[in-house]
Amino acid sequence: MQVFNPQYLGGGHNLKELVFVGLGLNDEKGVSIGGLEEAKSADYVFMELYTSLMPDFNLQRFEDSCGKQVKVVSRHELEEENGTAILRAAKKGKTVFLIPGDPFIATTHITLRIDAEKNGVKTRIVHGASIISAIISLSGLHNYKFGKTVTIPFPENFSATPYEVITQNKRSGLHTLCLLDLKASEKQFLSVNQAVALLIEVEQKKREAVVTLDTPAVGVARAGSKSPMLKADFVKGIIDFDFGEPPHSLIFPGNMHFMETEALIAFAGAPAEFRRLAR
Amino acid sequence: MQVFNPQYLGGGHNLKELVFVGLGLNDEKGVSIGGLEEAKSADYVFMELYTSLMPDFNLQRFEDSCGKQVKVVSRHELEEENGTAILRAAKKGKTVFLIPGDPFIATTHITLRIDAEKNGVKTRIVHGASIISAIISLSGLHNYKFGKTVTIPFPENFSATPYEVITQNKRSGLHTLCLLDLKASEKQFLSVNQAVALLIEVEQKKREAVVTLDTPAVGVARAGSKSPMLKADFVKGIIDFDFGEPPHSLIFPGNMHFMETEALIAFAGAPAEFRRLAR
Repeated sequence: MQVFNPQYLGGGHNLKELVFVGLGLNDEKGVSIGGLEEAKSADYVFMELYTSLMPDFNLQRFEDSCGKQVKVVSRHELEEENGTAILRAAKKGKTVFLIPGDPFIATTHITLRIDAEKNGVKTRIVHGASIISAIISLSGLHNYKFGKTVTIPFPENFSATPYEVITQNKRSGLHTLCLLDLKASEKQFLSVNQAVALLIEVEQKKREAVVTLDTPAVGVARAGSKSPMLKADFVKGIIDFDFGEPPHSLIFPGNMHFMETEALIAFAGAPAEFRRLAR
Repeated sequence: MQVFNPQYLGGGHNLKELVFVGLGLNDEKGVSIGGLEEAKSADYVFMELYTSLMPDFNLQRFEDSCGKQVKVVSRHELEEENGTAILRAAKKGKTVFLIPGDPFIATTHITLRIDAEKNGVKTRIVHGASIISAIISLSGLHNYKFGKTVTIPFPENFSATPYEVITQNKRSGLHTLCLLDLKASEKQFLSVNQAVALLIEVEQKKREAVVTLDTPAVGVARAGSKSPMLKADFVKGIIDFDFGEPPHSLIFPGNMHFMETEALIAFAGAPAEFRRLAR
């Protein structure tokens, strides 16, 4: 007869388990009740804070609320060393890996999850609020009318791709969510103003009237924080608008229902002329 | 000199404020720490549980954890009576309205938010995990490769629209997330099997080879719960597969990167032939 003896199990219950927990948005209170409980009951707790900016996140306060020491892992440890420290921990006991937003928007973490499963480590996910649904929620635009999402890179990596995605979505009447590139650890963030200027440059070459000074757009700053900022206007009213602190993002609406233009007027200070855009 | 006297303010601090709080997924632990704190400090707490299914949600446990009585509002009160009870409360004190997932996927709530702002009631949002990012996260498919999302309605409301959306996305190489219709209060849920059968019927009329028995698909059940079920296969292996309890959803992948086919093999039991689909 096999006797269960917790003494053999070291500090914890020694499940070979890796739980990916979304931190949600903005600060240490963005995590769900269930996600925090996973960290409280873990043997090892890791966290990354580089794939997305959590402007008001305080590590000490988080450690206090979960009662665990948290090991913050760098981009290098995850991408060059393939997260071996996390996998090694997961083979010893219950390991929680905390990730900004919802865990698998960043493809790096998908690789880690595949590696874990291939190594006989069970994985689970506790979801968190994602910046993507937050931006869409804030805007009042209808979720099912968004096409492909695109990231607008820094000028040194810029290409015509974002312009082409916006073009393609508009032809189908769809909205485009543009995430703006960031290097959270280097505190570099593309702004709405820079992003719009980059797209206007492409416009000047292509001349397809996709992003002109008269194109409607919605700039969003600090989605998920206590002070989100939204401004809907034609590009000429956005390009010099001060959105304040990062992170920023940008929406190019496609065809809008009148409830959507009303939402942009009520929530994002759109000019009344936006009513004429509704169909 | 104006003296602040809390006695004038009734029970609470009498902010004219309506805070929309996402409940996240599955149960009463899906809400964020910040979201629960909003409910704890509210004068009035409302909740709706009909726009999405939270399979393991227990109202009594939620009320115990926030220390407030929660008024559950029906579809009728929100859509026919325009949420007047909520607006009336928000004019008297801090009011929190709890909504499954992230608050503004359902357009009803956008209308309520517009009405509140027009009535001089300030609104805020505390985001929650959304079923949409949860399904995408679970699948391991890359978020930025999804096109327009579509809802597959019950047979009595079925049309060719979902088939056309899948067609359009596939032509652009994009994945399609299909949400399956539900009437949570009537406990009616479209299953993956029914949804696939409805699409095959359209295929038999249109014959565009968009959803055939040899089309790759991913069925997802109970995303966000402790027992999510994923099955990736060709449609012939999905159409009779038992996904168990609702809610269900369905993904039709477009062009897949090899990391995406590897993820479907590792997380969703896809057959090894899926490797041949990678490009």
